[in-house]
Amino acid sequence: VEHAKDIVDLLRYDEDTAGGLMGKELVKVNENWNVLTCVREMREQATNVQRVHSIYVVDDENRLKGRLSLKDLLITGTKTPISEVYIPKVDFVKVNTPDVEVARIMQKYDLEAIPVVDELGRLVGRITIDDIVDVIKEEADKDFQLAAGISQDVDADDSIIDLTKARLPWLVLALLGGFISVKLLNGFSGAMQHHKELFFFTPLIAAMAGNVGVQSSAIIVQGLANNSISGSLFNRLIKEVLLSLLNGSLLALILIAGSHLLLGVSYEVGLTVSISLISVIVIASLIGTFVPILLNKFGIDPALATGPFITTSNDICGILIYFTIAKMILGF
Amino acid sequence: VEHAKDIVDLLRYDEDTAGGLMGKELVKVNENWNVLTCVREMREQATNVQRVHSIYVVDDENRLKGRLSLKDLLITGTKTPISEVYIPKVDFVKVNTPDVEVARIMQKYDLEAIPVVDELGRLVGRITIDDIVDVIKEEADKDFQLAAGISQDVDADDSIIDLTKARLPWLVLALLGGFISVKLLNGFSGAMQHHKELFFFTPLIAAMAGNVGVQSSAIIVQGLANNSISGSLFNRLIKEVLLSLLNGSLLALILIAGSHLLLGVSYEVGLTVSISLISVIVIASLIGTFVPILLNKFGIDPALATGPFITTSNDICGILIYFTIAKMILGF
Repeated sequence: VEHAKDIVDLLRYDEDTAGGLMGKELVKVNENWNVLTCVREMREQATNVQRVHSIYVVDDENRLKGRLSLKDLLITGTKTPISEVYIPKVDFVKVNTPDVEVARIMQKYDLEAIPVVDELGRLVGRITIDDIVDVIKEEADKDFQLAAGISQDVDADDSIIDLTKARLPWLVLALLGGFISVKLLNGFSGAMQHHKELFFFTPLIAAMAGNVGVQSSAIIVQGLANNSISGSLFNRLIKEVLLSLLNGSLLALILIAGSHLLLGVSYEVGLTVSISLISVIVIASLIGTFVPILLNKFGIDPALATGPFITTSNDICGILIYFTIAKMILGF
Repeated sequence: VEHAKDIVDLLRYDEDTAGGLMGKELVKVNENWNVLTCVREMREQATNVQRVHSIYVVDDENRLKGRLSLKDLLITGTKTPISEVYIPKVDFVKVNTPDVEVARIMQKYDLEAIPVVDELGRLVGRITIDDIVDVIKEEADKDFQLAAGISQDVDADDSIIDLTKARLPWLVLALLGGFISVKLLNGFSGAMQHHKELFFFTPLIAAMAGNVGVQSSAIIVQGLANNSISGSLFNRLIKEVLLSLLNGSLLALILIAGSHLLLGVSYEVGLTVSISLISVIVIASLIGTFVPILLNKFGIDPALATGPFITTSNDICGILIYFTIAKMILGF
């Protein structure tokens, strides 16, 4: 009966909150007891509890006051009042704290269990680190899938229909993005007469734009997830521009040499493609960096931006920049 | 002095193994003691131990025999011999077990702590679930970064030089792949005379090949990481072909309609591109599925295959298939 009531209680809370994650099995003692009463009561409670994580101390109204370490209990005299030995500093979360936030707190402070209180500060449950392991794993899996353009939690053994539902939307997005690039290239078809080689380089430019964008966004997405991004947006802008100028210039050197030696392209076209490549890399890395930051500001999961979304928009921008620069230099 | 010796001991083990991960602080009791001796000894030991996770039971040679639950200790009479109350079934790992394997075991069996034994079965340490949280987090971060073409563990606040070292190698790979696609397109330049539109579709085809490949590989990589892939390779092949035929056909319909209505391309070219698209999607998803499986067979981290490696090779294959089919149909 007690058990059924517990489950009904837990069903009240959203699955993705501390309330939905917590267990009700815990050992608690009253601040007014002494160590002896405490041990006797704990023996009683412990028979109903699978594992003893922490001993929580509450007042007469069941409000969380602090915790008692098992260690202290083992080494303290039996007549000592609990109020003298308990540790008043105790981390806790509220029933409506999101599970991801609980995970962050427990990881940050290296906690093995954390008590959960209701709106009035009353102890209602506890979350252990093994519940959190699942949250962390799921969150990481979700980010990985989003970054790969898979919009639902699926695995290799799901049905073809489920897999299609998870994969097709992103492919349709990429296809529509592809239409835009066809339209753009059509607009630059005048270049075919004198500089048809330019069209041979479009997949190369698009691929570089996509790869750089994904790299930049992955680093920002992880930084946001781990709360490890410091400094102003302006400093980040400067850094990203410098980084991509450095990478872009090194790649441009390889491109100039390679396109002349391996592919027999004229230096004029080689230089044009190289200048475009540097510009495309700078823009792609800025898009990759700031789209996730923007999404995050608006409360949208920034991991969305690591996948087909960033590669598709960078393909389009890359091709546009490439042919615009080529037109300026070669004048077709 | 004890502490310094502990650290020297721990340095003997590889960082990525149970030995490198374990702590030496633990509470252990001899199987020949009774509950009273046990509690007295534990009080002694507990003063040196930050947190009491489990009580391990050893024999006179320090060989791990089992464990004692705190709960049982709280509810058992003081004169009971330990040999009567301890639980002989205890999960453990060896000092040279890889950390990722330890994480898998602890997650699978929902363990909060696991004892570590040496080659002779002697208890040498214990690993707690919060150590494992870091392993899981690092492993997930590493996979995410590999999939994004970042080859070292870097974060947004690292120096430009470190970020370049992590990013440039993959970009060079993508650039070299780009050279191959330039060469291929050059080989098909005969098509320019009558079917220049074909060249407008290359970024679209390459993007679809890349996206499908990344999706397929991400699903397999996660399946491999979670040990959740069942069934024979042949069944997987059939499933992947069916899945990509379904996705490919739906996308091809959109492509035929869109390329005619939006882009004004002839039905002949639209059909050619669509047939190519289906073929490219099938091949890309097979590459995405089987490259990670192959890498895994050879002991290489399959997450490597989710990133620029798969997009670059799929770009090349995609373009080759596309123009080969176009040549067969349109005959330029």
